[in-house]
Amino acid sequence: MSSFGLEVLSDDECRRLLSTAQVGRVAVCTGHPAILPVVYALLDGDVVFRTGPGTKLDAAVAGTVVAFEIDEADRISHVGWSVLVVGVARPIVDPEMRAHAARLPLAPWAGGDKDTFVRLEPVMVTGRELTHVTSHEGGARIGSGLAG
Amino acid sequence: MSSFGLEVLSDDECRRLLSTAQVGRVAVCTGHPAILPVVYALLDGDVVFRTGPGTKLDAAVAGTVVAFEIDEADRISHVGWSVLVVGVARPIVDPEMRAHAARLPLAPWAGGDKDTFVRLEPVMVTGRELTHVTSHEGGARIGSGLAG
Repeated sequence: MSSFGLEVLSDDECRRLLSTAQVGRVAVCTGHPAILPVVYALLDGDVVFRTGPGTKLDAAVAGTVVAFEIDEADRISHVGWSVLVVGVARPIVDPEMRAHAARLPLAPWAGGDKDTFVRLEPVMVTGRELTHVTSHEGGARIGSGLAG
Repeated sequence: MSSFGLEVLSDDECRRLLSTAQVGRVAVCTGHPAILPVVYALLDGDVVFRTGPGTKLDAAVAGTVVAFEIDEADRISHVGWSVLVVGVARPIVDPEMRAHAARLPLAPWAGGDKDTFVRLEPVMVTGRELTHVTSHEGGARIGSGLAG
């Protein structure tokens, strides 16, 4: 057993981490629950991702409060962090804003029309960092303090 | 624009991937939605993770249908995959089964009692693989076909 520490990340650090990642996950709570990976980018600090009309994700995020998460865990250094964004997701309908969104580095997905841009304005941004993790029986494992 | 392909992963491949990762994510749909990273292991093919009594995660998974997800995206090779498990999460109460769970490589978290083992028996296991991704305006991005 070795020592380890759990740190709450500052708002600034959470937003910095959000600007570095490219793939996040959206929780879908309608019907059976799901977690869907999305490629995202930031637009004036808001999370933007693409979806297709009529899709499960499209229905799930239309004007509803959703959770969006990014994380990283390093198998070698045994550190990890996660950032959770909660906010209302809305499709971008304003033509000028849509033109902005279309210039974001959001690659279209394989085999589908993903021409809806969804903007998630953060209401709550929280993050945790696990700076070290204990070694335990089957070996050292990595994690984030968000769980529980 | 380069070519790329989206593949549905077989059940066997999904279960193989589940046996290789160590950190997954649970969607919490009670109260405000959240996605919580957890360290997990497999027990007879079921996902097992720790939580603490009285925590948000503990309340959220008590006998409810939850989503659990793992994924990987490679920034260099531009391939990625994700596996989604949906099932009913229940605390392990049987003493013998709990002893089994206690021998799993599930490191305890920093600063909290996480002495509840939660077992998620999969009802649905699905996965997607994106084998290549197109280059688009701002640059190539990685993703999984689950979104949308």
